[in-house]
Amino acid sequence: MAFSRFDDPAVIPLWFGEGDLPTPSFICAAATEALDEGRTFYVHTRGHPALRSAIKAYLDRLYGIDVDPDRITVPGSAMLGVLIAAQIALGEGDHGIIVSPAWPNIDAVFRVTGCGLSHVRQRLDNDRWRLDLGEVAAAVQANTKAIYVNSPCNPTGWMMPPEDQQQLLNLCRERGILLIADEVYHRTVFDTDPAPSFLQWADDEDPLIVVNGFSKAWAMTGWRLGWVVAPASLAEKWAALSECYNTGSTVFAQPGGIVALEQGEGFVRQLQAQYRRGRAIVDEVLGGHSLIRHSSPAGAYYAFPEIVGLKDSYAFAMDILAAKDVGVAPGYTFGPDNESHVRISFAQSHDRLEEGLNRLVAFVESKFG
Amino acid sequence: MAFSRFDDPAVIPLWFGEGDLPTPSFICAAATEALDEGRTFYVHTRGHPALRSAIKAYLDRLYGIDVDPDRITVPGSAMLGVLIAAQIALGEGDHGIIVSPAWPNIDAVFRVTGCGLSHVRQRLDNDRWRLDLGEVAAAVQANTKAIYVNSPCNPTGWMMPPEDQQQLLNLCRERGILLIADEVYHRTVFDTDPAPSFLQWADDEDPLIVVNGFSKAWAMTGWRLGWVVAPASLAEKWAALSECYNTGSTVFAQPGGIVALEQGEGFVRQLQAQYRRGRAIVDEVLGGHSLIRHSSPAGAYYAFPEIVGLKDSYAFAMDILAAKDVGVAPGYTFGPDNESHVRISFAQSHDRLEEGLNRLVAFVESKFG
Repeated sequence: MAFSRFDDPAVIPLWFGEGDLPTPSFICAAATEALDEGRTFYVHTRGHPALRSAIKAYLDRLYGIDVDPDRITVPGSAMLGVLIAAQIALGEGDHGIIVSPAWPNIDAVFRVTGCGLSHVRQRLDNDRWRLDLGEVAAAVQANTKAIYVNSPCNPTGWMMPPEDQQQLLNLCRERGILLIADEVYHRTVFDTDPAPSFLQWADDEDPLIVVNGFSKAWAMTGWRLGWVVAPASLAEKWAALSECYNTGSTVFAQPGGIVALEQGEGFVRQLQAQYRRGRAIVDEVLGGHSLIRHSSPAGAYYAFPEIVGLKDSYAFAMDILAAKDVGVAPGYTFGPDNESHVRISFAQSHDRLEEGLNRLVAFVESKFG
Repeated sequence: MAFSRFDDPAVIPLWFGEGDLPTPSFICAAATEALDEGRTFYVHTRGHPALRSAIKAYLDRLYGIDVDPDRITVPGSAMLGVLIAAQIALGEGDHGIIVSPAWPNIDAVFRVTGCGLSHVRQRLDNDRWRLDLGEVAAAVQANTKAIYVNSPCNPTGWMMPPEDQQQLLNLCRERGILLIADEVYHRTVFDTDPAPSFLQWADDEDPLIVVNGFSKAWAMTGWRLGWVVAPASLAEKWAALSECYNTGSTVFAQPGGIVALEQGEGFVRQLQAQYRRGRAIVDEVLGGHSLIRHSSPAGAYYAFPEIVGLKDSYAFAMDILAAKDVGVAPGYTFGPDNESHVRISFAQSHDRLEEGLNRLVAFVESKFG
């Protein structure tokens, strides 16, 4: 894709997976303080105990649960958490399932393991994204070892209902499949807060790894700081892998995570309000258009509209970039059967967002109207 | 091992792989400045171009070479570089060779790939560590896909001679084996500077991945910042894997790397002088002792003496910790045939180092004298 225009200020960038606010200064101050104090040495490879305790307290508070802190690891980024989880579960000859549409790196991570791969796709049905759990069950093979699901979902904004989470967890229990639940958008939600978590329905030994991180809720994408909650029986394995993969997270980034969890609620809500307004703009401009099928996102900060008649999402993304200076992410990168879709991020300043969407609609009308 | 005593101030800690100096403040200031400027967003997943350019300039200057910057990636830590290299080269059914003694995480990384594994061990011969390249060649099998070598070596202090590097590289060329050269101690040297690098003998397409990082030469262990130089043909693969493994290094740590490379020579030399004095103490206390076979280390900041008569390195480490409050790393963790060895770090304050070594000698004499 047109990488050379990623930094072009003339482009309205609706393609990126982050907002335009930097990390708030009260969080940055914790990292600065650590640097000033010379906290630059190796630290516990599973994450500093104070950070792991803060994560436990946060999860307990948020979901009304009581997580064993020994299940929590801070390996580096959340992405590294997904990678380690996939490599624990999958190898050559195994089979994995990805609930799609999904962020393309997830496919890459599964493919690195050498496993066979199926996608079970959410469907845009009467302008709502839905996942048919019967299709997931039907996709399970004798050698299926892992299922990946991301809720709230990048790119569709779909949020998995609690009863569906419980049903999917049951399926994984029955079939001995590791459920890799990517919940990084758990606070990027608009009608309820937080999004339902698999942690609410699982016990310590269920075959469940929940991956989460600081990037989205606290605007900390560049920190590469995430966490996983793994079954208690995998605690030692996580410790070993966290050591040999990245030997832990950047030491002075970790105090920023503690401050985010303990003092960041106001900022989380501020972002929610900003993104909620962004969603309203997307709903207003795209909703009900005869050439665009749009589901109002329940979470994350993306819309993934279908453009009626679109057959080549890459060509469309290149064309609208050239013709209208609008950057969108082409649907094909999010897995099979997404060629008529584009991903739009609404974590942008609202004026630019509205202008970008208006240009998109005008371009769609000129091409497909 | 006695993890509960890792933070016990009564223990003289000769077991850790880092010194007791924090990162110098002029390097920390670059990270602080980035935080103050709100540089907290995602950055290029292969590393910021300015950092990759600084690495190129540093390597060119240091070795008199001209590295293609497209071969350079900053994936996260150097350890993550070793992991990705191993996972590129090795899978189930393949075979890897580790030149040992070696840091135990290297074994772990190779085992994660599912490959078969051989160790070719350096030998302590007339109080010098030597690697017999004939043994390496003899260990190569039809399915050998990677050889790992760490020079200067943790734990032995062995430094591979240039002619041996060229010979090993030739073997890898001829047999199509990926050579993973871990050069993180390239500036932690005492009689020459820098240590010889495989980059001096290789061209852009040789099957060579050199892993390096900021931890050792610039006292930046907690930053998790390293780099790899890979064959030009692997540039795209590295970009993809760096994105899907940790999605890059912590963004505000990267300016610290630039400053280290561009302004850190004085500090590198200061550390060399400190470690050189530490080596002199180790040589003085352990050298020539009738119960201890000690090779004066050419690089890194460890000695790996053999204790004559020792059969169980773990028991010894536990015993000396209990009896003398001295922490040493037991030999067995560094691969096969190291049960009569312990690793001693001399990156410590010199008084404590000397006291710890004297206690070690007294303990050895009481046990084996």
